[in-house]
This record gives sequence, C-alpha cells and structure tokens, in this order.
Amino acid sequence: MAGVTARRSRASAAALTAGGPAAAGLDGTTGVGRLLVQGPDRPGIVSAVSAVLTRHGANIVSLRQHSTDTVGGQFAQRTVFALPDLAAARPALAADLDREIAGGLGLRWSLHDTAHRKRVAIFASRTDHCLLDLLWRWRRRELPIDVTTVVANHPDLAAEVEPFGIPFVHVPVTGDKSEAEAEHLRLLAGRVDLVVLARYMQIVSAGFLQRLGAPVINIHHSFLPAFIGAGPYAKAKDRGVKLVGATAHYVTEDLDEGPIIEQDVVRVSHTDTVQDLVQKGADVERAVLSRAVRWHCEDRIVVDGNQTVVFGR
Amino acid sequence: MAGVTARRSRASAAALTAGGPAAAGLDGTTGVGRLLVQGPDRPGIVSAVSAVLTRHGANIVSLRQHSTDTVGGQFAQRTVFALPDLAAARPALAADLDREIAGGLGLRWSLHDTAHRKRVAIFASRTDHCLLDLLWRWRRRELPIDVTTVVANHPDLAAEVEPFGIPFVHVPVTGDKSEAEAEHLRLLAGRVDLVVLARYMQIVSAGFLQRLGAPVINIHHSFLPAFIGAGPYAKAKDRGVKLVGATAHYVTEDLDEGPIIEQDVVRVSHTDTVQDLVQKGADVERAVLSRAVRWHCEDRIVVDGNQTVVFGR
Amino acid sequence: MAGVTARRSRASAAALTAGGPAAAGLDGTTGVGRLLVQGPDRPGIVSAVSAVLTRHGANIVSLRQHSTDTVGGQFAQRTVFALPDLAAARPALAADLDREIAGGLGLRWSLHDTAHRKRVAIFASRTDHCLLDLLWRWRRRELPIDVTTVVANHPDLAAEVEPFGIPFVHVPVTGDKSEAEAEHLRLLAGRVDLVVLARYMQIVSAGFLQRLGAPVINIHHSFLPAFIGAGPYAKAKDRGVKLVGATAHYVTEDLDEGPIIEQDVVRVSHTDTVQDLVQKGADVERAVLSRAVRWHCEDRIVVDGNQTVVFGR
Amino acid sequence: MAGVTARRSRASAAALTAGGPAAAGLDGTTGVGRLLVQGPDRPGIVSAVSAVLTRHGANIVSLRQHSTDTVGGQFAQRTVFALPDLAAARPALAADLDREIAGGLGLRWSLHDTAHRKRVAIFASRTDHCLLDLLWRWRRRELPIDVTTVVANHPDLAAEVEPFGIPFVHVPVTGDKSEAEAEHLRLLAGRVDLVVLARYMQIVSAGFLQRLGAPVINIHHSFLPAFIGAGPYAKAKDRGVKLVGATAHYVTEDLDEGPIIEQDVVRVSHTDTVQDLVQKGADVERAVLSRAVRWHCEDRIVVDGNQTVVFGR
Repeated sequence: MAGVTARRSRASAAALTAGGPAAAGLDGTTGVGRLLVQGPDRPGIVSAVSAVLTRHGANIVSLRQHSTDTVGGQFAQRTVFALPDLAAARPALAADLDREIAGGLGLRWSLHDTAHRKRVAIFASRTDHCLLDLLWRWRRRELPIDVTTVVANHPDLAAEVEPFGIPFVHVPVTGDKSEAEAEHLRLLAGRVDLVVLARYMQIVSAGFLQRLGAPVINIHHSFLPAFIGAGPYAKAKDRGVKLVGATAHYVTEDLDEGPIIEQDVVRVSHTDTVQDLVQKGADVERAVLSRAVRWHCEDRIVVDGNQTVVFGR
Repeated sequence: MAGVTARRSRASAAALTAGGPAAAGLDGTTGVGRLLVQGPDRPGIVSAVSAVLTRHGANIVSLRQHSTDTVGGQFAQRTVFALPDLAAARPALAADLDREIAGGLGLRWSLHDTAHRKRVAIFASRTDHCLLDLLWRWRRRELPIDVTTVVANHPDLAAEVEPFGIPFVHVPVTGDKSEAEAEHLRLLAGRVDLVVLARYMQIVSAGFLQRLGAPVINIHHSFLPAFIGAGPYAKAKDRGVKLVGATAHYVTEDLDEGPIIEQDVVRVSHTDTVQDLVQKGADVERAVLSRAVRWHCEDRIVVDGNQTVVFGR
Repeated sequence: MAGVTARRSRASAAALTAGGPAAAGLDGTTGVGRLLVQGPDRPGIVSAVSAVLTRHGANIVSLRQHSTDTVGGQFAQRTVFALPDLAAARPALAADLDREIAGGLGLRWSLHDTAHRKRVAIFASRTDHCLLDLLWRWRRRELPIDVTTVVANHPDLAAEVEPFGIPFVHVPVTGDKSEAEAEHLRLLAGRVDLVVLARYMQIVSAGFLQRLGAPVINIHHSFLPAFIGAGPYAKAKDRGVKLVGATAHYVTEDLDEGPIIEQDVVRVSHTDTVQDLVQKGADVERAVLSRAVRWHCEDRIVVDGNQTVVFGR
Repeated sequence: MAGVTARRSRASAAALTAGGPAAAGLDGTTGVGRLLVQGPDRPGIVSAVSAVLTRHGANIVSLRQHSTDTVGGQFAQRTVFALPDLAAARPALAADLDREIAGGLGLRWSLHDTAHRKRVAIFASRTDHCLLDLLWRWRRRELPIDVTTVVANHPDLAAEVEPFGIPFVHVPVTGDKSEAEAEHLRLLAGRVDLVVLARYMQIVSAGFLQRLGAPVINIHHSFLPAFIGAGPYAKAKDRGVKLVGATAHYVTEDLDEGPIIEQDVVRVSHTDTVQDLVQKGADVERAVLSRAVRWHCEDRIVVDGNQTVVFGR
C-alpha cells in the first residue's frame, strides 16, 4: 500500500506533463482541462466553444477539430486549456457548456481534469509482454494513469507483477464464465475508468460490458480484419503473409469487431516459424496497446459509430 | 499551349479537393480559405480568430493550433474555412484581421484562397526521379499547384518533360553562375510562388534568394544533419550505416542548413553498393520532396526560426 | 521500333549489373548464372551443388539457402555464380545437374543466364501509377527485364505509354472475356516469360493461365487476406483501419489467393477519405509491385505450395 | 544463486531454438554449430567449406555468403550445421579447417557451438529501458545468452534488477575512471564473451578494451553520424529534425565511431519537446540494442574494417 501511495504522488507530476508542451510549466494552482465535443456539424461550433472557454478565463493551449464533411457531417473537437483553479471553476463552466453547447448546438461534451488520472485495471493471462510494458511505462510516468489492479485468470504472472506494487488478483475462469465475471464486477464496477485486456485471451460478455460501466480496450494479435479469431499467427504463417500486425480496439459485443484505435505491423519472411511470428508480433502488440491506452487516457479519442477519431499531437 | 490550358482547367477541380474532406462537396460559389496566424502566444487568440471568421460568415472546417509553451511561447494556427464568395468578402475580412489579429494581438497572418493555386517552377539537372514524380502527381491532380516551368542546367531531360506540356528551359550554368541566375530571375521573378530544386545540384546564391521573392524548397539526398554536402551516398557506404535517408528543407543562405520540412529513410545493408544506395535513396527522395511540396502548397507549414511547424491532417 | 532497339542495347548493361555486387565488374566474356534448387531436404545438398559448380569452373558469388526444418523439411537454394563463356558451358553443366542434383538427390533445378533478360508483358486498365512505375524503372535500368508489350482493356493510357517506345495494344474486354483472352494468347503465348497485371482489374481464367505458359503477377490493393475482392479501400474506410496496404502475388485460379510475394502498408487516419486512401495506397501499390517484379526477374523467388521463399540480398 | 541456476537450465532449451528453424527439432545428442569464415575472396571457397563440413558428417541447415566484389573482394560466410556429438567431433573438424581453410585458402574462421551460450555482462547507469528490455528478453528466452552480471555506476536500478536473479554490482565512477575500470576487469576479464553498454553513459578507455578481451556493444541515442557525442536529443530538437534514431555499434577507441550493427528511427514532430524525444527515442534504443545483441550472439556479424556484415535469416 505504501508503495502504491508513493507511486501515486510521483505520478501526479506525470499527469500534468503527459499532455506534452500543452501542460508544461504549470504551477500547482493552475489546472489543465480537456474538453471533448462531438455531434452533428453546423457553422460556428469552434467559435462558440472557444468563446465559452475564454469567457471563463481559460487559455486554449491546444485545439484540434475534425468534420467528416463540409456540410452535414459529424463534428468532433478536442480542446486543451489552462485555467487557474479548474476544480472551483468547473460547475459554472459545465453549466454554460450544457446550455450553449449541448442545448444550443445539440452537441455532446465531456470535460476531463488532468489532475484526476484515469483508474485502470489490467486483465492478463499467461503472457507477460503487454502487461509488463504497461506497468513499466506507468512506473516511468509515461502513462497518465493509476493502475489499480491486475486481474488474471492464471496465477503465472504474480511474481512478475509483485515488484510494481500493484495488487494481483487471480480469478480463475472455468467453463461457465459468469462466476468469474461476477467477481470482476465486484472488484471493479464503479472503481475503474478503463479496463485493458492485455492478451487476456477470454471473451467478455455483453452483460459484463454493460454492468462494468467503463470502456474496455483489447489487443488483438493480428492486423484486423485479417485473421480474426483464434490462432492468428498460425493462420498468418499458413497464408504466407510478409507482414504481421496487431490491433488495439474498443471491445463491443462482437468479437474483434469494435472500433479500431491503433494498428501496426512488422516485416516477416519465409524463414520465420510460427514461434518467430509470435515473438516478433509480441513487440508490435505491446507497442500498439500502450499507444492506445495512452491516447485513451489523454482523452484523444472520440468514437464515431464503429470508427475512432484519434486526435494526435 | 493548348495542352497547358487543358491541364489548367482540369487542375481547377483538383485544387478544391486537395484539402481532403475540408474542401469536399463545395459548389462553385463557395470559396475555401486557409488562414495562417503566428506570433507570441497570449490567452484568447483562438477565440479571437474564430470570432472574426464567424462574424464574416465563415464556417471553420478544420483548425489546428500549436503553442511552444503554456506561457510565453510561440503560437501558430492553421484554420480552413468555407465562405460563400470568398473573393468578394476578402477585403473586409483582411481589414478586420489587420485590426484585431495583427494590431490587437501582435500576430502575423496570411490568407490563402484555394481557388488560386500556387505557381511552381521546378529546377532539375540530369536525374529524373524527383522531377517526374512531381510532374506525375501534378498530372494526377494530387498536387494543388500550377507547374509553370521546368528549368534545367543540362538539356538531358527535355524529352521526358515534353509529354507533360510544360515549358522546358535550358539555362546552362558555367563557372560564374551570376549569368544563369540573372536569366532565372528574368524568367521567374514575380511569376512564381515557389521554386522547387528537384536534385538541381547547384548552390543558389543569397542574392538570388532575395531577388526571387518566393520560397525555395530543396531535396538533400541524406538524412540531415548526417552527410551534409556532396556525395552523401558514398559517405554513407563508407560509414557503414544501416539506413539512408532524404531531407526536404527550405533553402537559406547556409547550404543544407535551412528549416527541415520532411525526412524519411530506407533500410540498406552490407550487400548494397553505392549505386544501390543511390537507387534506393531515389525512392525516398522523390517521396519526401513530393510530400514537402504538397504541404507547402496546402499552406500547412509555418516557419519558426530554423524549425518548421507542419500542420498535419 | 528504333526506340525499342535502342532501349534493348542500353538494357543489356543493366542486366549484368542488376544483381548488385554479385554481377559487377564483369567483362563481356564472363557469364553470370543463377541456379535455383528446391525439393525434399537431406544432408549434403549444399556441398553437392557447390561441387558441381566448382567442377565446371564457376565461382560462387552469392549463395542463400533455406530449409523449412532441420530434418525432413523442404530445401531451397539460390546460387549466383560467375563462369567464363556460360553459354558454351551450359549443356555439360545441365547434364551434371540432371544426373547429380535431380537424379541423385531428387531435387528440381532451374538455371538462368543473366544475359537473357526476362520478356515481360504488362497488363493495365485506366490507372497509370503501377504501369508508369514499372516503365520508368525499366527505362532507368533498375529492372533487368525487356518490356515487350503493354496490353490494356481501355485506350486511356496510350499517350502515357508512347514516350517509352513500347507497343501499346488495346484489347477491349466485353461480357464474354474469352475473345479477349484468345487475343492475349495470340499476342503473348511463347513470347513472354512473365505477365504483370498492373491494376488490370480483370480476373483471368484458369484456361488462360494454363495456355499462357508463363507466371502472372498481380497487385491487389489491400493487405491480403484483409479486404479480399473488389473495393478494398472503401471497405477499409468503412472498417476504420489505421493502415492500408497492398499485396503482390502470383495469380492462381483462386482470386486473391495465390502465393504472396510482397506486402507493405502506409498509415492513414480518420481524416482520410476513401479518395485519400486510394491516393496513399497507390504509392504503396507501385512500390510493392515493382519490388515483386524485380525479385521474380532476379530469380529470387521459389514457390513452395501456397507460400514463397524470397531470397534477399 | 538457485535462481540463476534455474534460469540457466531453462535457457538451455532456448539456446537450441534461438536460431529459428535451423536449430529446431533437435534431440539432445545432436549439436548445432555455426561457422564464420572471412578473408580475401577467391574461387572455390563455398565448395571447400561445405566439403569439409560434409566430410565430417555435418548437415548444412543454413548458409549465407557475401563477397564485396566479383573479383578481388572480401569474402564472408556464415554456415549453420547439425552434427551428432559436435563436441567430440570438434577437434578433428578444427584441424581440417586450419589446414584447408586457413592454410589452404588464407581465410580466418571461428566455430561456435550453440550449446555454449555467450556470457554477457550488461553495464547500465540510471535509465532502465535498455537494461530491462535485455533482461526481459533473456527471461522470455528470446536471447541465446547467459547474463552473468549487471554493472552500474549508480545504485538506482538495483531494485529493478533484483527480480531477475542477476548479480547487480555497483561500481562508482569518479573523476579518474581507472579505478573503476580496474574493478570491472577484476570482475569480468576472462569471464564474459560480450559486454553490453545499455545507456552506460561513460566512455571506456582503449586500455580497458584491450585488457577485457571481449567485444563491447554500445547503444548511441542518435542516428549516427548525426548528433555524435553528448545530448543528441537536445541537438535534434534544436535542428528541427523529423525523425530521431538510435545506433548500436561495436565500441572502438574512437567515441561513436565503431562499426555500426543496427540503426532505426521513429517519427517526431514540432509538437514533441526534448523530453518527448527522449521518451520516443527510448523505444527505438531498446529495440535496436536488443537486435544487435541477438545478432552478435547468434554469430551473425562479421566485422570488415569499420563496417559490419550482418547475415540475416
């Protein structure tokens, strides 16, 4: 517990700087907020949003906006702003956003205070690469998150998680997974902002997703939609592809069909065995998953139907 | 000449669509403008700029903004907007930008009407890859430019340029290059918006740059600052590097020292001879130069000292 | 025709050097051969093959060998060798290979004299990027081939092919494609060593493949097996992928299912329209197809079932 | 100690499989050897080497050969072979190699038994990414090595190394580094086959290199020869480059001038601060260093002057 507390205070500074230059150089009394806005496009949205923020004393330090079409498309915007005493200013700001942005323009908005890091639970099974890469980046303060728990359906990785000072909870999954999911919900519902499936290798049910009340990110070990389902590296070897890849996506009821957040590939050749593909792919998987988690926790992602808008730097 | 005219009318449609979704779906009476703003950062700039645009009836379809620091940094912003009858609205809009953005906030601004494609002259020597890639992308309508002239210090490429219907002007460069540069200025000064050195292999003088009155983009056949100067591929082979690259940059008085726009690399190995490096590098050079020209002509680049801000999509 | 002749003599030198260092520095009287050997693995193959070559006076300048397993796998080997007067030595060498390698070891072999460039016909439709990239690399002497004919089912690209001095043959394809294929066979059967489908966009029949008697390479505009069939870029946009790719493969009776030679990808984002994907993908398609054609014509590829062994440099 | 022993036995299997298919499927009584041969090229080397191996009962499972020129170049060859009871056969094989390959052909050779993993000491300072990536890959059995010791000039990383069961030795380096180097030599001379500088950040002396009697691999945090020396990321930011990289090289007396083994890069932009470059670069550094260590320990590298021949798969 002491370890966790220590991490927490160390990580506070990390959360402030994780947004890059936008959040640098802030003293303790200045807050940094991120405002996401999305909905049907119409003229004047950028102006309206920036007017609200400016009126409340905010200085916009980063703004990116996307419209799917010039007329009649979908609009999405991410705005990072600095505001002294953000926590105190928040209620009045929220009231104006409700009235002018939601009410007046018919848009959805969400406001994120970077002082509140997202609480993340990581699910793993027997392979360590994705899990350890997330924990290592968290410990290096590269990820603006609090890792609250590691949940695993096998006990194998307990010793590897131990040095990080994060609770490791072994929840076996048997034929009927409803019991395990009930245990997961007891542990996590209302206590996490994100669940990451770090090669968890188990399908989660629609009911679990609904009751969890938090988004779930999965890493699939292929370049989707190629090699959907189980055993993608063996399928890749069998097909003789020259690249293998990995895909991080939000989990929906349809296996491997959720909105894609990030993908990448690595070159392979006829000399690579299936085991070589597994090994080369592992490097891509951990990189892709870590990027997806970072972007989600930096509030860079807007889901639009089955696609994602990812606001880069 | 008929060929050039035909290209010109074909390319009109290209200019409107080259900005991607931002410019799509516009009928003939709606203009699309791009506004670049840069200068010392202070609170309220985004709001002020969007207020001016909105007041003039513009709909912001893309906005990207960058600050080098939260307080006291440099600010840069690119805004794409749709505005019916932009040409007619421009004088009043410019007056407000002068008063409120330049006068009130101390910022520089430039306004670009996408209906006016940039006039580009390409300088070449004896190798065709960069020149042809630009001409080919221009003919495919991938680049929102008018290629007005190809200037070469050798006659070798005349036959390859001929099918594109662009005037090919052979201006030999002898020991004293002042005569050639005078001829270049007679041809181009006041008649081009950009000069592209497509492996021209000649140093241009500071005087030429001043009198030209338009930016010049060069492609250097190495990953700068590695292998500055002549013969970079031979130097790369000699050093035994495992990647070779190319760098597109604005030309300044200092050889190979101007602000870098884009760079890329390709993998090489001990099996590659210097000639192999030249060949592999050629593919990188043409790709890097074409991207740099595109970004410049889409008004995506703000020069900040010896660095560039490149606003992506 | 004069143009074709001129190209041909120019390309002679290219064929000698296209193999890289292996083929460099040879005078006119020394031949360079490439020997491919494949079949069931057993001890002693490398030694036996090199003994035969050495006995005939050949100097091995490059050798790569691949076994799918230590015991009981499939063996493949590519050997490049220099041999004075290869043409004269060939019959005796072939007899020994037949006896010792085929007869004694149960392996298949093929011997390629680099003095005989492969005759290549390129099939195109309306898009120029893959076709022009091949023609341009051929003209630059990057590809060790003779392009004998361009065949197209539309006349659109005739003017773009004309400057290269290659016959352009327009063979329309109507509902029943058997007539067109009969015309293709009249033009090509026995006269080409390779047919390249450079975004030809037509399915060729099993009967055509059999009667042609030469391999056919196709470029598919997706990262197979993702987005098999028609309209892959629209499918990619719809699925929201973050990379698009291209695949060069040998054509078999099953559409998009033949042995993959090469694949590559390029990063895309939510800002890219389908048209943007088409444009970005075009750069990958031309690069991937040109690499596949080069490797085939440098005798680097051994087909093993539905997979390829590609011997690199 | 028990932990180290346990690792060692686990790693035995790893050593056998780390060579990929070449070494797969071997029972306990069959050895796998790797033979490196280099020197002035002449006809018949491949044949002579394979004849010696075949005569001793070896089955060649992988062979790659490189000549810098067709005539008068430098020759290098890597041959992987299977041989029952390699240890027993070695003396006679070595005698023949001495007589026929060294004596008869004037070549240098070295023979490596994959049953003997290379003993590796890792030097670190305060940053953990390169060190942990090597330890993690060693624990996953991706690297065919025995990590014998971690040496650090600061104590910071002791706790992170502890879970791996490797001795962590803190050897402070003060103004005069001769004392530290003497301690290093007491620890390592004659006891290691390779020293890896994993962001050790200290220059090692020529005397140390001589007395160590083992190669040393360093990771430099830039794409050499760009940004040689200290502070490369700050220099990269200052120059405004669009890619940052890392270089693994053998250490020689000249700082950052030794033969390059591997390099790679990652894309950066104007939005990245120096700290962002450090973070993005760290991922490239650890990947590049791990590849270099793997290739060295799989006997894939031949040093030819200031360049390396790296035999891929």
